[in-house]
Amino acid sequence: MAQHQRRIYLDHAATTPVDARVIEAMQPYWSEQFGNTSSIHSIGREALQGLEEARQTVAAVLHCQPNEIIFTGCGTESDNLALRGVAWAARQSKRGNHLITTPIEHHAVGETLEQLRELHGFDVTLVEVDEYGLVDPDAIGRAIRSDTVLISVMYANNEVGTLQPVREIGQIARARGIAFHTDAVQCGGSMTLDVNQLHVDLLALSAHKFYGPKGVGVLYARHGVDLVSTLTGGGHERGRRPGTVNVAEIVGLALALKLSQERREIESARVAALRDRLVAGVLEQVPDVRLTGHPTRRLSNSASFAIHGVEGETLLMALDLEGICVSTGSACTTGEAEPSFVLTAMGLPRDWAVGSLRMTLGHLTQPEDITTVLDVLPRVIDRLRKNDLGLSD
Amino acid sequence: MAQHQRRIYLDHAATTPVDARVIEAMQPYWSEQFGNTSSIHSIGREALQGLEEARQTVAAVLHCQPNEIIFTGCGTESDNLALRGVAWAARQSKRGNHLITTPIEHHAVGETLEQLRELHGFDVTLVEVDEYGLVDPDAIGRAIRSDTVLISVMYANNEVGTLQPVREIGQIARARGIAFHTDAVQCGGSMTLDVNQLHVDLLALSAHKFYGPKGVGVLYARHGVDLVSTLTGGGHERGRRPGTVNVAEIVGLALALKLSQERREIESARVAALRDRLVAGVLEQVPDVRLTGHPTRRLSNSASFAIHGVEGETLLMALDLEGICVSTGSACTTGEAEPSFVLTAMGLPRDWAVGSLRMTLGHLTQPEDITTVLDVLPRVIDRLRKNDLGLSD
Repeated sequence: MAQHQRRIYLDHAATTPVDARVIEAMQPYWSEQFGNTSSIHSIGREALQGLEEARQTVAAVLHCQPNEIIFTGCGTESDNLALRGVAWAARQSKRGNHLITTPIEHHAVGETLEQLRELHGFDVTLVEVDEYGLVDPDAIGRAIRSDTVLISVMYANNEVGTLQPVREIGQIARARGIAFHTDAVQCGGSMTLDVNQLHVDLLALSAHKFYGPKGVGVLYARHGVDLVSTLTGGGHERGRRPGTVNVAEIVGLALALKLSQERREIESARVAALRDRLVAGVLEQVPDVRLTGHPTRRLSNSASFAIHGVEGETLLMALDLEGICVSTGSACTTGEAEPSFVLTAMGLPRDWAVGSLRMTLGHLTQPEDITTVLDVLPRVIDRLRKNDLGLSD
Repeated sequence: MAQHQRRIYLDHAATTPVDARVIEAMQPYWSEQFGNTSSIHSIGREALQGLEEARQTVAAVLHCQPNEIIFTGCGTESDNLALRGVAWAARQSKRGNHLITTPIEHHAVGETLEQLRELHGFDVTLVEVDEYGLVDPDAIGRAIRSDTVLISVMYANNEVGTLQPVREIGQIARARGIAFHTDAVQCGGSMTLDVNQLHVDLLALSAHKFYGPKGVGVLYARHGVDLVSTLTGGGHERGRRPGTVNVAEIVGLALALKLSQERREIESARVAALRDRLVAGVLEQVPDVRLTGHPTRRLSNSASFAIHGVEGETLLMALDLEGICVSTGSACTTGEAEPSFVLTAMGLPRDWAVGSLRMTLGHLTQPEDITTVLDVLPRVIDRLRKNDLGLSD
């Protein structure tokens, strides 16, 4: 480990530690209010009360009705339920077979639509993004066909932080009577989640991205959006998500969301200032580096780069040895550097797209962390480039 | 509340309180080893280590390989993944379209097979059970067709506790090369889970049934069983169950399973003795009552009855007022008494099947609880019958 004492965690987009108040709020539900919310007796009803209070808390943040909130096991499950649910409901009622998305969605969306296409015969149109990862709402509009039943565009990209014009796409979708889903998993802590402002019909969240526990997510599903359940079983969540309800973690999710939303403007401003210092420092001190994603229309905590002549995972591991935790959209699974599919879709050539570096700030980030990173990172990149160890192929 | 001071919880089949040692074991994973197991850096690897140790613990209990263990969000999801996964994989490879089950499965199985039948065009055969809820392995054998790809029979019934001849069915399935799934959700704490002894290919568990947390389950899937993922996204759980891994609760599940299995013989004997006293007392003191399920071939903690002239939910609520928490397989959702589908499938006439009462014992159960219940229950049933309030239709 490097000379600086503590590890520096710049991977808040991957996951966050659980807020101490959230851990505290979950405790009674492990062994006191431990009932099954489906049980009619008093111990069950105590658990149910915790569940329904959590639902109201989440609904207040999203500006929706409590019964439009479905609790799930993770953001991936929320996305899956939205996409499969709408697709199958449309097929069942013979309303259409065509789905629209972008090539830079999280795998929870991209792979789901791919399975719907390949295994189940749905038509999927990918609407291209520009060099910043932005999708043009008019291009979405032009992709709409008479048999289009769903549009899915993420709120913010997890690798490059670009914020999509969700509201504009939502208006187009609504005017055409098409369900609009957004993966908002990166946005729980920093963006508005007002579903009316956003004009979304389906919105997915995951607690562990905003200082809540892993293993619990939310799908907002607007009244009138027809969903076939993707899990079947008991009648939990009004039949839309069976399975014994994870009350403790749902209570944790609700509190974490409330706390994150309460402080999001102050916290966003704080991390954005640190992030801006980080981005400026990297661009100034490291040669042959590009900021990826939109320069301004991006998540407040996101600093992402393409670094020429360095392979992302190699850089990640070198920084890890220095006590700095970061992420990459590039992989090295087969011994050969794989370019980031997001950067590739944004038009970056392969020799840049294999060098994806993502640093995402959050509650753990302190000003001195940025100072340390700006000291260590240029040196590490320089060493990797000189040793020619950066690029493994 | 009644004169006895503490509430009596006789609903361990619905859910259980989390063991204090399990709560303790989960704590570090909320805010210290909080990493995402997909992250390659040290904080991610620490979380991954917790996950893989948990996987080894579970595999040791099941006598299988660690990579045959898939962690899910609940028992329902495990069942769904097993059934949908095998069905779709079979369709994809054109191996067949026929599924076999019983009419008394948990909804997680029953509703899933019904959706596969109704929405996706699979053929489903229901093999009848006898008056004890037992299925005949030979009848399963006779239901097999050349296009049968899956048999699903629960290990123990959740309402009446009857243990199915899983091993015998498993032998038949294996001889015919058909995947065999068992919903073992009721059995984690009290029965062997040795998948080789049981001859099962797929087995579902849920942590909250054996003093672990809600929100986490296991699917065992034997090597060579072909599964199409029912959630799609990242590559977690070797691609079979995407979604950020719920490390804390998985660590909790593993410890809870280990602890339950270590003490299962002692604890089963303890609760079986209390249960036997309860059953004998009820049959002796309450007129017009039947034990439901098999008299001996049943879960050690399960006491279930059909009570003539009393509606299950009414009885449940009357007992709740007396501080006794029980369950029923009958419902009263529309103001009209609905008979238990399990009891109906076992041939009980409607006037008995509306009076389902389930009492399931566990760690919380003390001898004096049985004394209290045997004091209160006959009195409550008598009152309901006299007031004619028991049967709402």
